[in-house]
Amino acid sequence: DRLTDVSQDQLFTTFQDFEVVRVLNTNEEQKSIAVEGRLSGKEGTAVVCLQKLPFSAEKLSEIFSDATNLKTLFRNDVYYNKLALMPSQLNEIKATIIYPAEEKHVLRFEKQPSSFVDETPQLYEEITKPFIESSAFSKEWIYNILEHKKEAERIVFEDPDPDVGFILLPDLKWTGKQVEDLYLQAIVHRKDLTSIRDLRTQHIPLLKNILHKGMAAIKDKYSVDNHKLRIYLHYQPSFYHLHVHFTALSFEAPGTWIGKSHLLSSVISNLEVCGDYYIHTTLPFTIKDNHPLRAKFKAKGYFTE
Amino acid sequence: DRLTDVSQDQLFTTFQDFEVVRVLNTNEEQKSIAVEGRLSGKEGTAVVCLQKLPFSAEKLSEIFSDATNLKTLFRNDVYYNKLALMPSQLNEIKATIIYPAEEKHVLRFEKQPSSFVDETPQLYEEITKPFIESSAFSKEWIYNILEHKKEAERIVFEDPDPDVGFILLPDLKWTGKQVEDLYLQAIVHRKDLTSIRDLRTQHIPLLKNILHKGMAAIKDKYSVDNHKLRIYLHYQPSFYHLHVHFTALSFEAPGTWIGKSHLLSSVISNLEVCGDYYIHTTLPFTIKDNHPLRAKFKAKGYFTE
Repeated sequence: DRLTDVSQDQLFTTFQDFEVVRVLNTNEEQKSIAVEGRLSGKEGTAVVCLQKLPFSAEKLSEIFSDATNLKTLFRNDVYYNKLALMPSQLNEIKATIIYPAEEKHVLRFEKQPSSFVDETPQLYEEITKPFIESSAFSKEWIYNILEHKKEAERIVFEDPDPDVGFILLPDLKWTGKQVEDLYLQAIVHRKDLTSIRDLRTQHIPLLKNILHKGMAAIKDKYSVDNHKLRIYLHYQPSFYHLHVHFTALSFEAPGTWIGKSHLLSSVISNLEVCGDYYIHTTLPFTIKDNHPLRAKFKAKGYFTE
Repeated sequence: DRLTDVSQDQLFTTFQDFEVVRVLNTNEEQKSIAVEGRLSGKEGTAVVCLQKLPFSAEKLSEIFSDATNLKTLFRNDVYYNKLALMPSQLNEIKATIIYPAEEKHVLRFEKQPSSFVDETPQLYEEITKPFIESSAFSKEWIYNILEHKKEAERIVFEDPDPDVGFILLPDLKWTGKQVEDLYLQAIVHRKDLTSIRDLRTQHIPLLKNILHKGMAAIKDKYSVDNHKLRIYLHYQPSFYHLHVHFTALSFEAPGTWIGKSHLLSSVISNLEVCGDYYIHTTLPFTIKDNHPLRAKFKAKGYFTE
């Protein structure tokens, strides 16, 4: 039976009628949990994600008061190990509930394992390159930016040179305000480079231009020093038109781990040490187990051990 | 006045007498906060670190019950955004207290910014190499492991060969139990290799031996597949005797970001593409701003822009 809008507003004042069917994901680092469940006596699936919130600076004086009870686990000399029990309003948790939830909602919250692929030049030619070419990812939105048809007001810096030029603009995930989580992208004007695999000696001027003019523009506009920036490319990238990420070093930006990111200064150094580096090297990357490219590798027998 | 042991046991049953002097660090990702403070009417500094704990699997049925109150923030169609208020015993916080705390304790908890260094071969010769040689880090504990004088019962696998051999054992940060956060280290028997900077063509057999026998030993003992492992070296490493980290890909192990870690398969590929790779390449790394090596770079004018 379809619930009315008003009756839905009365749902979830507690978890009294909620029954956990299975845990979809737990993140011990971020202190979150996602579960699939149902409401007793009602139809439909519910997805619930609980996420502990960071300590609130405004509530510090309440947290550090007699409202917090401390239970001793053990003490060794000057070191006290305790459990702190706080009133719930000082220790809030964000709850995101989707009800009734569709299959896609469940999938979005379900933990998706990844695998490592060691992509040799041969595997690139046989699997990755045909995948990129056949997938026909739409690049309209990139060309719209390069041609000033969209997001022109967001451009922080542009070098219009067709060979070594690029556009620098804030990443969509960044508010563009506080420099603590600064995140910009440099998108190259030339359209023939899909990823770091395509880079050769003759692209060193392009890469150095992005490095130096990108750093200078960020220093100029945001007053962030060069050595406080993390400047890198993804492999595999989320779109196959060469672009470079600039993030604040103080910010643990997503996807800056090995198996995903390559520092621009390393990429330049690799090409200087060996101009054919990206023709001959093995590029390891992590890939979600439900990614279509992984299926291509699996079909070629890559994951049979 | 020196407190007696018994009176110290009676401290910190709440934070009633605790006064915050300053916030040392907050981590919004991990939901932790560290503060420096004092006890009213008492001498000495206290350091308190609060860390929210992950959701406990054993308490799920209590968490998802009428004990949890849900306060609506907003609702949009099937999406409910709520604040969850839970009894404190279902929402525990770990409190680590050091009292009386010394300056070193305060420093350990204080947020320490980092910088990027692009270490050219010349900078390595002029700054890093002399630093490593002059610092005389004690390697006794490593030799104790290699000679079976210590931790022999912890060895998971050993290849005793003096050229390509190594010892594989659990990292001290790992409980050695659940494979979700599996973490082992391979320590090479030979004593002449300080870091990846020293690697040449002739070390490829050593590296491949670690890669293949390490993966096989982990598959054998922990049933973790090869492509579910992240296998890497740190640069700068925490100690200058060549060692390789093996962690579960599902685990966001500390220090796996670019500017700190180098995948073993990339290192092997680099040496195969160019045997002199680590003589000629620029190695970028992040370094804490209070690290003595950073002071050496600064003294040579590296950070003047």
